[in-house]
Amino acid sequence: MSRIKRFYELGELGHNKVEDLLKKAKSSETSFNPRRLEGKVLATLFLNPSLRTLTSFQASMARVGGSTFVVSPEMSIHGLETMDGIVMDGRAAEHIREAVPAIASYADVIGIRALAKGFNLAHDVSDADFIEIQSLCDIPVINMESAIHHPCQSLADWKSLDDMSIPRKGGKIVVSWVYHPDPLSHSVPGDTIHMAAMRGMNVTLLRPSGFELSNYIMDRARETAALTGGSVVETDDRDEALKDANVLYVRSWMSSEDYGKKLADRNRRNELRDWCVDHSWFKHTHDNCRFMHSLPVRRGVEVLDEVLDSRLSAVTLQARNRMYTQMAVLDELLRTDKQSS
Amino acid sequence: MSRIKRFYELGELGHNKVEDLLKKAKSSETSFNPRRLEGKVLATLFLNPSLRTLTSFQASMARVGGSTFVVSPEMSIHGLETMDGIVMDGRAAEHIREAVPAIASYADVIGIRALAKGFNLAHDVSDADFIEIQSLCDIPVINMESAIHHPCQSLADWKSLDDMSIPRKGGKIVVSWVYHPDPLSHSVPGDTIHMAAMRGMNVTLLRPSGFELSNYIMDRARETAALTGGSVVETDDRDEALKDANVLYVRSWMSSEDYGKKLADRNRRNELRDWCVDHSWFKHTHDNCRFMHSLPVRRGVEVLDEVLDSRLSAVTLQARNRMYTQMAVLDELLRTDKQSS
Amino acid sequence: MSRIKRFYELGELGHNKVEDLLKKAKSSETSFNPRRLEGKVLATLFLNPSLRTLTSFQASMARVGGSTFVVSPEMSIHGLETMDGIVMDGRAAEHIREAVPAIASYADVIGIRALAKGFNLAHDVSDADFIEIQSLCDIPVINMESAIHHPCQSLADWKSLDDMSIPRKGGKIVVSWVYHPDPLSHSVPGDTIHMAAMRGMNVTLLRPSGFELSNYIMDRARETAALTGGSVVETDDRDEALKDANVLYVRSWMSSEDYGKKLADRNRRNELRDWCVDHSWFKHTHDNCRFMHSLPVRRGVEVLDEVLDSRLSAVTLQARNRMYTQMAVLDELLRTDKQSS
Repeated sequence: MSRIKRFYELGELGHNKVEDLLKKAKSSETSFNPRRLEGKVLATLFLNPSLRTLTSFQASMARVGGSTFVVSPEMSIHGLETMDGIVMDGRAAEHIREAVPAIASYADVIGIRALAKGFNLAHDVSDADFIEIQSLCDIPVINMESAIHHPCQSLADWKSLDDMSIPRKGGKIVVSWVYHPDPLSHSVPGDTIHMAAMRGMNVTLLRPSGFELSNYIMDRARETAALTGGSVVETDDRDEALKDANVLYVRSWMSSEDYGKKLADRNRRNELRDWCVDHSWFKHTHDNCRFMHSLPVRRGVEVLDEVLDSRLSAVTLQARNRMYTQMAVLDELLRTDKQSS
Repeated sequence: MSRIKRFYELGELGHNKVEDLLKKAKSSETSFNPRRLEGKVLATLFLNPSLRTLTSFQASMARVGGSTFVVSPEMSIHGLETMDGIVMDGRAAEHIREAVPAIASYADVIGIRALAKGFNLAHDVSDADFIEIQSLCDIPVINMESAIHHPCQSLADWKSLDDMSIPRKGGKIVVSWVYHPDPLSHSVPGDTIHMAAMRGMNVTLLRPSGFELSNYIMDRARETAALTGGSVVETDDRDEALKDANVLYVRSWMSSEDYGKKLADRNRRNELRDWCVDHSWFKHTHDNCRFMHSLPVRRGVEVLDEVLDSRLSAVTLQARNRMYTQMAVLDELLRTDKQSS
Repeated sequence: MSRIKRFYELGELGHNKVEDLLKKAKSSETSFNPRRLEGKVLATLFLNPSLRTLTSFQASMARVGGSTFVVSPEMSIHGLETMDGIVMDGRAAEHIREAVPAIASYADVIGIRALAKGFNLAHDVSDADFIEIQSLCDIPVINMESAIHHPCQSLADWKSLDDMSIPRKGGKIVVSWVYHPDPLSHSVPGDTIHMAAMRGMNVTLLRPSGFELSNYIMDRARETAALTGGSVVETDDRDEALKDANVLYVRSWMSSEDYGKKLADRNRRNELRDWCVDHSWFKHTHDNCRFMHSLPVRRGVEVLDEVLDSRLSAVTLQARNRMYTQMAVLDELLRTDKQSS
């Protein structure tokens, strides 16, 4: 199978390549060669905070003899300007058009995090910011979460679903909005329903009115489901949605109706504080329905301790699988042909 | 000798294991295998600032082919909530109950720093915060300073005492309070007197009235001294304390009388600004009495330059021994049985 | 050729050693041994912000199996006091006289950044601050930019000039002041004209009145040029300066006339906002005149996009060469004799 040149989102890889990566990830769990990527360097550019991505990528490289350097927002890096055609007489003393090629020239692969700015839905769905930064790199690029995609999370979640023996065809996953005080992006819910559709599952998007995902996201998931024998529906009826579910995957996001309107969005969300997962959500689910969340999660706000601390919760499994799946992605992008034999 | 499963405090290791670690540390000074821990990963979680611990652990891993990743308080990690049963609608977007298992799942060993909160003496002496975090990890844990223990410092100090040929039985160490503008914890003085008692030394705790250490700390040190042939006494009489001392070990700490009462504690300390080490402290000590301090130290406040810059000072030796002793601890916790032969 | 013991500035190395390092750097571009410096540790102490130096040194070590740890200004390291004889009752809880020897004791080589304080020109030109910190280290020291020198940049720039086939003897380089809102140091312009003089080039310093570089810098460059067959002149006449230039190297710096006088210096610079490079600067230059800048650069302020984004710009080449030349420097300072064969 031909090698991938970047890791931007699962859809462009195709089903066979994903299976290939998952197989490699599985084998990384039990053994790996601590010199396989010796001398290789991963650059990471975080324009936004990170905990799991930051640490799991460092570990993923270290276990096979590679190294990582980090450029992060809290560093004294003079500020990084991203706007084109600007006269830089303000705080930022450096433009990404100089910084990114420099950083990339020191590495064999670069990971970039550039979250949604949250002003304009069409702009964020187009992923224009990430795509521009990506165009400045002449080495393989890993999407460490962009405005609209989070493929590292989705690949890890796919592996977690496999690890828990959640059925592909016929398995039911509910991706549900929950309350959160901050306006979060559409990347995780969008990529999660698409990943589940790729996996052939029956997907229900459960969200209050005003929190629909964009047509681009929904159409893309439905088209994929049509090919894999899965399905994608959406509703605001919690009881109907959760009936016989094998998995409840939870995440908050900004209202699409009031996208970019801070006050209106907050007021709308404030009315929905009862969208917090407790045991009652599992009344009519499948017996072994698992609880999933990409973290960080706000206890007592998005979900009660009674669920998060129960045997239902898969959140630590999901976090751990970040490392194993990323080891597979790095191996795919970095190994030389000589090593692949 | 059986391998240790964690590095929490020297007392639980026992004398023989400490000697074993010191022997390994000594040999690390002259040679080490730069591939011995290849592919191994150390996670570090700092809930408080660090300089020596942060850098010496990275160097300790790097010299034997391992790697370290750092999670530190100044990072943009959404804030880390530590309180149980909380509704997380404030600033912190992540709870240690999710963050710590995730970080630990990326590593082979984890080091944690969680200093005393300084509100309640009994709570801090119980080390409840550190023990709770430790319970979230299913890999070996290294105490990088908790509310009441700092075993990395104590093991390095033991080696420094050996390096300087300070006698075990019959050697006299004075652990003295000094003035400092900030209210510091009881971990270093408590662990230092216990380490010296384990070493069989005669220990004098020199402190002003109101700065007694807790009964737990004193009783523990006295019980250990009873077994090793050492002794533990305390006094506020400087001349008596320092007479014939081989070592003066200096550290400030918060008043036990006014523990958690910020203003009362500060007022009490402000009256004691003359507790600053100068040459006069060495008038009646042993001729070659050495000055020790775990650093950081405030020049002109805790001790004058005339002492710190003199041949008496052992502070750089103490700092350097952090690396060698930690290399021994990491080797003990990480090497596989195959490598141990 | 004898090995160097430190990397402080190119002048003290001499021409042959520089050629030797450049040859090594060239070979690092195509191949390197990923275990050559295994187990070796680079300590970095940044008293000021950094992006390229910070990341390129980490990559330089990682590619040959070594490791780097970073101590940087944004870390919670209690603040680092640098003043001698001070009573440390303020914010800083640690003095460089304790911190630097500790850090150095964990490493095989240490890199230090300590930029000009910008209060007193004679003090900054003397490089007293860097030299004091250097004196606290008993391992090889790399100057990662001091008040008056930036040898890592100059060595990389020399390689870039070679890579672009800019003539040594007879080649003309113009080092020009440009407008910048902040008062920057004299290290880059001073070391650039000296590097070009070492290379045997004809150097023109182009700067407005009041922005002359110190006699120390100019005399040193002229003396070097006298030995290499190059030349050094200065002028404020842009047309004359740029005529037939092979290279335009751009950098802003604080007025020498108003050095340390914040308001006067800013007012003087504010009158000179037209010192911003555009296409018109290249009217009478050599046909293939290249644009160089050590970065970070403020777009639209120091130079227009039309130049920076054109084929004239060498800034990414310059940045990339930081890594290759630093690999040569690290190899020179760290390899053991056994490895050198």
